Amino acid sequence: MDNIRESLRLSSRLYNKNIPHLKECIKTIHLCHEKLQYESNYCNYGYFHGTPPILYNVFSLNNSFSRPVRSDIYISDKKELEENLLLSYNALSRGGIDLSDKEIVSINRIVYTSVMSVACCFDLWQRGSRKTPGTFFEFFMAALLKTMLPNQLFSKHIPLGNLLGDVETTEGVSHDASNEDEEDGGTASVSTDLVIGFPHRPGGLVIPLKITTRERIVQPFAHQRILNAAFRNNAYQSLLVCISETQLDEKTKSVKQVCVPGTVKLFQKYLSPISGLYYCDIPQRYYYSDITNIIPVKTIGDLFRDISNYFHSHN
Amino acid sequence: MDNIRESLRLSSRLYNKNIPHLKECIKTIHLCHEKLQYESNYCNYGYFHGTPPILYNVFSLNNSFSRPVRSDIYISDKKELEENLLLSYNALSRGGIDLSDKEIVSINRIVYTSVMSVACCFDLWQRGSRKTPGTFFEFFMAALLKTMLPNQLFSKHIPLGNLLGDVETTEGVSHDASNEDEEDGGTASVSTDLVIGFPHRPGGLVIPLKITTRERIVQPFAHQRILNAAFRNNAYQSLLVCISETQLDEKTKSVKQVCVPGTVKLFQKYLSPISGLYYCDIPQRYYYSDITNIIPVKTIGDLFRDISNYFHSHN
Repeated sequence: MDNIRESLRLSSRLYNKNIPHLKECIKTIHLCHEKLQYESNYCNYGYFHGTPPILYNVFSLNNSFSRPVRSDIYISDKKELEENLLLSYNALSRGGIDLSDKEIVSINRIVYTSVMSVACCFDLWQRGSRKTPGTFFEFFMAALLKTMLPNQLFSKHIPLGNLLGDVETTEGVSHDASNEDEEDGGTASVSTDLVIGFPHRPGGLVIPLKITTRERIVQPFAHQRILNAAFRNNAYQSLLVCISETQLDEKTKSVKQVCVPGTVKLFQKYLSPISGLYYCDIPQRYYYSDITNIIPVKTIGDLFRDISNYFHSHN
Repeated sequence: MDNIRESLRLSSRLYNKNIPHLKECIKTIHLCHEKLQYESNYCNYGYFHGTPPILYNVFSLNNSFSRPVRSDIYISDKKELEENLLLSYNALSRGGIDLSDKEIVSINRIVYTSVMSVACCFDLWQRGSRKTPGTFFEFFMAALLKTMLPNQLFSKHIPLGNLLGDVETTEGVSHDASNEDEEDGGTASVSTDLVIGFPHRPGGLVIPLKITTRERIVQPFAHQRILNAAFRNNAYQSLLVCISETQLDEKTKSVKQVCVPGTVKLFQKYLSPISGLYYCDIPQRYYYSDITNIIPVKTIGDLFRDISNYFHSHN
């Protein structure tokens, strides 16, 4: 794990200094992918009993299991992974314009495989570092999006100006996990993970990135409400981006998809509406019409097309 | 730890069946308090460099440390603990009417000592069970509040009726950690921890209980907004109740108080205002006038007086 941690540290350092870090992310991915391939078992675990049922795999080592992995999205073959990385990279380098269905599927699988490789390595060999896979998800997505949109402004803060009257408040993000919960001086730091904006005017896309939402699902709706108060409505739009909502159930050897559809509907109606909910592995319950009628629910492959379209129509 | 876990399980079972569980909670507290006293070291760790500076202790075992503990609030002497338990019990048994300053300080120290005993035991001997101390905090507070208000209705759900039109939605709480993030069937379950209401009408106090808030600080403000939409304004009031916001800084051998004052002000203004912020160990930054001018900030000792007054003036 030492080389993996070192590679993650380097990516993080480059990202924080605004130096291109995609290459280092890909190095991390290969290290994790290979470690799982050679040092763990990859096998069927059990079904999510939905309609249709979905079979999940796990990586295992002795008696410990990684989180559940969808074998139809995860790319386990090294050569196939490299082909898909190249296909995705080329598609994004064109600016994400006119992405084909094949490219969208490929990008979705690449994001899933990459984030799950890192997360499963930490599940098996370093369970203590809970936040690291989420941090990798953040900076890998930033690397892919910067490849697609080299001229947009990527930032960690949306200055909220004098919204409170008494202090200058910034809505910001911290990539340093130890700092995540604390504000600097008198400024409010509401974690937004990633903001893609315009060079010379406010507005853009706020992109909370969470491997899985759990009780944090409320955050993007609350942040959107504050952004709507601080700027004209819809100057900023929020797209919530997640990997999956799964959990192993060791008693029944099955997989649960942990969903809170009623809560999502309440937040969308009574806080402020967000503009999209994106998953690599879309939970079935969020794909029912009562949710999709009020929030677009799509894959992370589609996310790249939607973001590309947003900036091509707003520039 | 086996006897401690067994006692916690029994408390939880009694609480979920609505059978008085204060006695079992006190048993847990004594077990944890004694284990810390006899099997760990209790010593000075370092200062929070505030105005004034505050010295924190820790329990330690070999090279591992518990969370920081304020020695002026934590009762380390067994006899003193028993005296304060009795004093607090008698004060609450009177219905919490006309609590003296001495009683308020005693209740605050009892809650702090009890919750920290359990939490520090888990810090030293079972770090994996992160949620258990928080769960104990919930049901110990419920036990004390039921002692004070035997005729009020304690519940885990506020039915939100037809707020969404399509499903019957309940705002609820689950004390089973494994279940916490999942909804039953089509109902929304927004975790509220504890609700004290009236037998024959809606309304009352919503009491989120969090040992420390971190990124969950947004929840009570968001829930209050939904309650304001579902019922007449202020039918329900939210009181956020926490132990402390401290963190060890091992590099500098000091203690940090992790606060987000700007965020709290934004939420209070742009989501829905909550009616109080209560701590055993009030973070200094939340006691500045820019916060106390918009949210009452008090000790958990004061909480019992405020809740008692609320029900005596609303019944």
